Amino acid sequence: MTQLEMARAGKTTPEMKTVAEDERLDSELIREGIAAGTIVIPRNVNREVTRACGIGAGLRTKVNANIGTSADFPNVEDEIQKLRVAIEAGTDTVMDLSTGGDLAAVRKAIIENCTVPLGTVPIYEAAIRAADNNGSVVHMPEDAMFEVIERQAAEGVDFVTVHCGVTMESIARLQKQGRVADVVSRGGAFLVCWMLGNERENPLYARFDDLLEIARKHDVTLSLGDGMRPGCLADATDRPQVQELIILGELVDRARKAGVQAMVEGPGHVPLHQIAANVQMEKTLCKGAPFYVLGPLVTDVAPGYDHITSAIGGAIAAAAGVDFLCYVTPSEHLGLPGPDDVRQGVAASRIAAHAGDVAKGVRGAMEWDREMSAARKALDWERQAELCVDPVMFRRYRAERSASTEDVCSMCSKYCAMKVVDEFLRKG
Amino acid sequence: MTQLEMARAGKTTPEMKTVAEDERLDSELIREGIAAGTIVIPRNVNREVTRACGIGAGLRTKVNANIGTSADFPNVEDEIQKLRVAIEAGTDTVMDLSTGGDLAAVRKAIIENCTVPLGTVPIYEAAIRAADNNGSVVHMPEDAMFEVIERQAAEGVDFVTVHCGVTMESIARLQKQGRVADVVSRGGAFLVCWMLGNERENPLYARFDDLLEIARKHDVTLSLGDGMRPGCLADATDRPQVQELIILGELVDRARKAGVQAMVEGPGHVPLHQIAANVQMEKTLCKGAPFYVLGPLVTDVAPGYDHITSAIGGAIAAAAGVDFLCYVTPSEHLGLPGPDDVRQGVAASRIAAHAGDVAKGVRGAMEWDREMSAARKALDWERQAELCVDPVMFRRYRAERSASTEDVCSMCSKYCAMKVVDEFLRKG
Repeated sequence: MTQLEMARAGKTTPEMKTVAEDERLDSELIREGIAAGTIVIPRNVNREVTRACGIGAGLRTKVNANIGTSADFPNVEDEIQKLRVAIEAGTDTVMDLSTGGDLAAVRKAIIENCTVPLGTVPIYEAAIRAADNNGSVVHMPEDAMFEVIERQAAEGVDFVTVHCGVTMESIARLQKQGRVADVVSRGGAFLVCWMLGNERENPLYARFDDLLEIARKHDVTLSLGDGMRPGCLADATDRPQVQELIILGELVDRARKAGVQAMVEGPGHVPLHQIAANVQMEKTLCKGAPFYVLGPLVTDVAPGYDHITSAIGGAIAAAAGVDFLCYVTPSEHLGLPGPDDVRQGVAASRIAAHAGDVAKGVRGAMEWDREMSAARKALDWERQAELCVDPVMFRRYRAERSASTEDVCSMCSKYCAMKVVDEFLRKG
Repeated sequence: MTQLEMARAGKTTPEMKTVAEDERLDSELIREGIAAGTIVIPRNVNREVTRACGIGAGLRTKVNANIGTSADFPNVEDEIQKLRVAIEAGTDTVMDLSTGGDLAAVRKAIIENCTVPLGTVPIYEAAIRAADNNGSVVHMPEDAMFEVIERQAAEGVDFVTVHCGVTMESIARLQKQGRVADVVSRGGAFLVCWMLGNERENPLYARFDDLLEIARKHDVTLSLGDGMRPGCLADATDRPQVQELIILGELVDRARKAGVQAMVEGPGHVPLHQIAANVQMEKTLCKGAPFYVLGPLVTDVAPGYDHITSAIGGAIAAAAGVDFLCYVTPSEHLGLPGPDDVRQGVAASRIAAHAGDVAKGVRGAMEWDREMSAARKALDWERQAELCVDPVMFRRYRAERSASTEDVCSMCSKYCAMKVVDEFLRKG
């Protein structure tokens, strides 16, 4: 039975208890959330993870780090290093988005080293094999799409992105409307090519029941992908995007009915003032399914800093009810990220998630800030290092820009405001 | 006559025309905004700047970069380098916040090299001289506060932060309420020490008319400082902060009456969901005076990444109506920033400002994103480099993580979504 089926049967699983402890919430709340489909625990029955996590309503906003090879950087060792950096930096989950080298070997190595829930986008493997062996993504056999999903599920992948909402209807809406950036989702693009090239409906939609059967068997959480996500501000919240979201909402119903855990993916590039509307739409159209967004990036003009454009959007999204943030690194739009990009991406996303958690009143969020600030006021630098998001960065700055006395920092030195007012305010 | 007096007299100055051209707005709109006090042009009559700028309602959100020595890093050459980096990175204004070394010499060098409007916090010089010569900030002569303001105004400083709202009333509210982080404004802290040590009212408040006279003479814009700004989330939007803001609102009235341009400074550390309320309060209490915020930082727990915590808050603040963002660098809370911190701080703040401008519909904001995205879709990398926030960073990533073919990037390489769907969508 899946976590969802057990929750519905009134059974509190060990995973639910772990999540409850992690969140300092009652395990009955977790069970109810999973039964209702507003919380998921991505957890394949074939694999144990060290740090299980719950994603959804009332829980801490979680963070995902994408790693994986590309054709230009196919080295598996690099990806294992990025995996370690991501986990050390505090990511909640990891996705292997490899598209270069021996995909099965890379995934095997990542699975072996991954202590957190792991996600993949199986269509990549099917499409790239077709391109390599048959000359084009268009020649990808329909069954191959399901075979790779089944194989990856058997290997222990905890959640899979499946672009089931890229349907003939969504594509027609896109063609009728026109767009500045068309399709920017890689999985979405592969499917659009296949569908238009073969003049056939998306098999992941047409044969959604086959997908549900695989997911249910291994308790793989479906992450319903947004192949129509906007790739620039001008395309945000447009007809193809919302059309796809309506379809994903219908598929959430079917997944829940089949006992399969499901979450929904969202944009992308979205102007700041449209983010709350996007979250609200997902929550109504998809009946409270956990919402997993990429960014959102609040401007298109800052390549090299898209961890920041995404942190802005991610914080606002989290505050508005988003449950799960996919990180974006500084190298987005420019190249495959390296280890330092991964570190910065995870930190930026964790900051966004936490800022959102403070705003939406997640249990314990505000207390973290209070504890940090008490340590700051006490000029207790060791305690600040322990409490902060990235102790490595904290200690590096303290060492490189040190002050002549240990109690202050070199910005204000002896004129530290916190320090100088103290005797007067106490006396006053 | 000051810009404000000329605007009221119906005269459109060359500076107003420059600002109008820069913003692609009618110069009459600028004149009206200045006459109403909702726009300022920080522009000392004793100095020419290459890039004048307007700050206020309907204009692009502007960005300020703080530079300046500390006791531990008193080197003037370092600060000139930071000044150059800040201007190259696109800051709209610079503030010299030096507190170490020969303050007058540092300021002179900065004034000589500063092509954008320059601000200072004159109380630093008065307080530090008192600490050095008389043994304590408490022994700062009252007249010395006005002498340094007059001298800096005569030297050509375009705007000065004056913490006139740190009054006995504000301090009493702070003491009655209590706080986690007390006072974190350096200028505010100096004044609190002086006031409590001498048991006297803040001269910058008690003798505000003297200040107005100096400001009017040189057309120095007053930036009414927030000495009571919250230094942690737990202290945000509390009684001393709001008390001070009420007083600053009254002083805005008096400045306008005296023909002196004035803006108001704001927090600081503010939870995401309280930012819009803070902006609304300033706009009503201070009758639409331009609002200049530091950050705001949406969490206390991320030293080493406070350019990001500030970009989140700054974007939300700008969208809600803030006119001017003071950058925060990654070294905030840890040490005096170096040149790379300055670069990152300016970039993060410009991103925040622009994201806010898109949201509040500033003229031309959305067009920038559209143009960038058209270049991205066309895989025109040279045009993207020209258009982006930081071309240096853009080219560095492209060079270090290059793909085997020039037309794509190394993240997706030949599987670039933008590229692969193109032929199918066009045909469809």
